[in-house]
Amino acid sequence: MNNYKMTIQYDGGRYKGWQRLGTSDDTIQGKIENVLTELAGETVEIIGSGRTDAGVHALAQIANFKISEGKNESEIMEYLNRYLPQDISVVEVISVPERFHARYNAKDKTYLYKIWNEQYTNPFMRKYSMHVDQKLDITKMETACQYFIGKHDFTAFSNAKSKKKSMVREIYTIDIEENAGFIEIRVQGNGFLYNMVRKMVGTLIEVGLGEIEAESIPGILESKERVQTGRMAYAEGLYLEKVDF
Amino acid sequence: MNNYKMTIQYDGGRYKGWQRLGTSDDTIQGKIENVLTELAGETVEIIGSGRTDAGVHALAQIANFKISEGKNESEIMEYLNRYLPQDISVVEVISVPERFHARYNAKDKTYLYKIWNEQYTNPFMRKYSMHVDQKLDITKMETACQYFIGKHDFTAFSNAKSKKKSMVREIYTIDIEENAGFIEIRVQGNGFLYNMVRKMVGTLIEVGLGEIEAESIPGILESKERVQTGRMAYAEGLYLEKVDF
Repeated sequence: MNNYKMTIQYDGGRYKGWQRLGTSDDTIQGKIENVLTELAGETVEIIGSGRTDAGVHALAQIANFKISEGKNESEIMEYLNRYLPQDISVVEVISVPERFHARYNAKDKTYLYKIWNEQYTNPFMRKYSMHVDQKLDITKMETACQYFIGKHDFTAFSNAKSKKKSMVREIYTIDIEENAGFIEIRVQGNGFLYNMVRKMVGTLIEVGLGEIEAESIPGILESKERVQTGRMAYAEGLYLEKVDF
Repeated sequence: MNNYKMTIQYDGGRYKGWQRLGTSDDTIQGKIENVLTELAGETVEIIGSGRTDAGVHALAQIANFKISEGKNESEIMEYLNRYLPQDISVVEVISVPERFHARYNAKDKTYLYKIWNEQYTNPFMRKYSMHVDQKLDITKMETACQYFIGKHDFTAFSNAKSKKKSMVREIYTIDIEENAGFIEIRVQGNGFLYNMVRKMVGTLIEVGLGEIEAESIPGILESKERVQTGRMAYAEGLYLEKVDF
């Protein structure tokens, strides 16, 4: 089998997330598989580095797929971009050894969260950021970030259903950057639970608004009591930015 | 009468342009006037620095309006942003002398045109730039730009209907910048005819693709024969960026 790795960008706005649900056509994985199956003349399954939730975007999602008959990389890329909708783009396709697996081999991931922190809406970024109209205190948010770094049980910051699997994840870095009206939060870690980044960012926003103290984070982590879903930052501000192998 | 100057950002995607058409509600001017009329309790007319075509965006359109009863600037701004749709934002409202007129006093304007020049579509900018998938030759385009600078009769680069009014406009500067996959063209001048920037950019793209020579621009200007509308760059890449007074 010929194995290919691809890098994908998408505007998740109108999709039910990455993961294919049955035969429905409203997921990113489903859209790409349908086009690849046409190209290869056989059923193709793609393996993503991980799922993104409904509405979440990707700047560089990584996936791999295997097909019986080897094809030229640029031919595959052109075919995909010709038949995929305009909100999904394949920016690179490369041939990789057969053992390469986009999920098992992913070492760490970086998510980017964009907050638009001005009084007025940003007309161009309203679907690509979360609007917070009260000024956020970055210094407090940065203090709070430090409590997330390291290995923790992130039960409190997830909506993961399984109670059997480990909820321990390691966060390597969290950076906050102010950039022309935006506050950009980058979180790098070895893995993320369902809704984890959005609950972390939602909590950081509460810290930035002065609603809770930065110092309350360790207690929330230890409690393992789930942060309310109402406090989750919106999906439209979240981007899977990078996957390292 | 109390006179106010406002700075407006909009995503022109779903509008028929700036200028109100009768009583219809599908123009930027119409949308803002409706909200201001509610606020003031009297019919308010706004004067824009100039029209933008259907689908064209603005980063800083300037307009002024007069109301009988003086109001607090931030109160006006908050009211507007509360009732305007999310694709129109008022980013500043300031009280100005009664003689200030957004159209008559506008000295020059800067338009920005964004071209996405990669093989694949940019999922996030597909409504905010024009996609050109063949590599453009920036050097050739820069050479072509020089021929637009100065005072010229721009009949060839417009769809203006009136044959009585002067078609002479002065272009002060045109800059081309490459920026992470985008080619950004900035045109500053004392005024622009209907569709003029889009026809100029469309022609620059032809130069960049090697379809016509940079040196053919002076001849096109002198001919006063209209560049075909099919060669116009799309509205979605165009932004009114700045108005100077």
